Amino acid sequence: MSKTLVFGHKNPDTDTVTSAIVYAYLKQQLGVEAEAVRLGDLNNETKFALEKFDFEAPRFISTVVGEAKQVILVDHNEFQQSADGIEEVQITEVIDHHRVANFQTADPLYFRAEPVGCTATILNKLFKENNVEIPANIAGLMLSAIVSDTLLFKSPTCTEQDIKAGEELAAIAGVDVAEYGLAMLKAGADLSDKSLED
Amino acid sequence: MSKTLVFGHKNPDTDTVTSAIVYAYLKQQLGVEAEAVRLGDLNNETKFALEKFDFEAPRFISTVVGEAKQVILVDHNEFQQSADGIEEVQITEVIDHHRVANFQTADPLYFRAEPVGCTATILNKLFKENNVEIPANIAGLMLSAIVSDTLLFKSPTCTEQDIKAGEELAAIAGVDVAEYGLAMLKAGADLSDKSLED
Ligand SMILES: [Mn+2]
Ligand SMILES: [Mn+2]
Ligand SMILES: [Mn+2]
Ligand SMILES: [Mn+2]
Repeated sequence: MSKTLVFGHKNPDTDTVTSAIVYAYLKQQLGVEAEAVRLGDLNNETKFALEKFDFEAPRFISTVVGEAKQVILVDHNEFQQSADGIEEVQITEVIDHHRVANFQTADPLYFRAEPVGCTATILNKLFKENNVEIPANIAGLMLSAIVSDTLLFKSPTCTEQDIKAGEELAAIAGVDVAEYGLAMLKAGADLSDKSLED
Repeated sequence: MSKTLVFGHKNPDTDTVTSAIVYAYLKQQLGVEAEAVRLGDLNNETKFALEKFDFEAPRFISTVVGEAKQVILVDHNEFQQSADGIEEVQITEVIDHHRVANFQTADPLYFRAEPVGCTATILNKLFKENNVEIPANIAGLMLSAIVSDTLLFKSPTCTEQDIKAGEELAAIAGVDVAEYGLAMLKAGADLSDKSLED
């Protein structure tokens, strides 16, 4: 119960899942007992990214009640997109790139939202601000999130900051952005995978 | 109307007034047409700080309607503490150290809240992150805000970050923290000033 859970929104996408893993890693490096969890099933795109960079899927939880007293939200802030029971725990941090709404706390917190295309672009800054090095496989997850949220830098929400972060992270991860990015997006769009599972 | 207004809460205190001036300065350095304004009368402590570092009081506004289309909130986020008409303009940024509540936007924004004792402590980081030098008189205002909100580093809300920022800013401003801080707090508590004005 002393652990801090880190999670993104329901109906998880690649940014939500990888940002939970990545930010839990950063918090661990800073001495916080943090665990990434997820609120729903992974899609094929996210599975492809986790497999590529050798990560397990985070543990699934359906409610935060009985799981933790303190939580960190990534890639969302609106309570209706968050874990069941969110009103009953302390939110110590939010790292997000969406509008702020349907959110409130009783106490001051670290709330970092920026109008960029992807949570991972903000996390890239937080590693630098905290002087923590980004391992290659963590960089790979962050790149996957940016590719997913910006559709390989082509979405209207994509900013210069997302492009620059993507280039930095691709270099650390040692992957070709266009080649890996297209393969990942294709895995997400691949309907044959879906029919195998259903 | 193309200007971005920067303001703190109603019943302004020293952190609210100086943070509006300081952040408007930083935004100007970054190419934004920003103007600091205030939502109420200055107290004697704030007047003392502005006089010491040679600043004019920001312009008073009673509503944002007709004043600006875009605004930046400092030292608060709750709408009931903000300018009249706040729901009718775009909030592009919030820099704050309070709980988040009674706040919402239609669009993504830069929202930076941290659980520290003073807005100026966060602004000190933002100058560094944006590679903008802090002039001596701006540092003096920021120091005044920290002294005010932390009661010279003695409040329960004061953090290590506030103490460290206060020391850095005092060195830039070229003032003795204890000597100046006590004089400023004394000016705020001085009832003889008050009776002269009333
Ligand atoms: Mn998402
Ligand atoms: Mn996202
Ligand atoms: Mn205040
Ligand atoms: Mn304050």
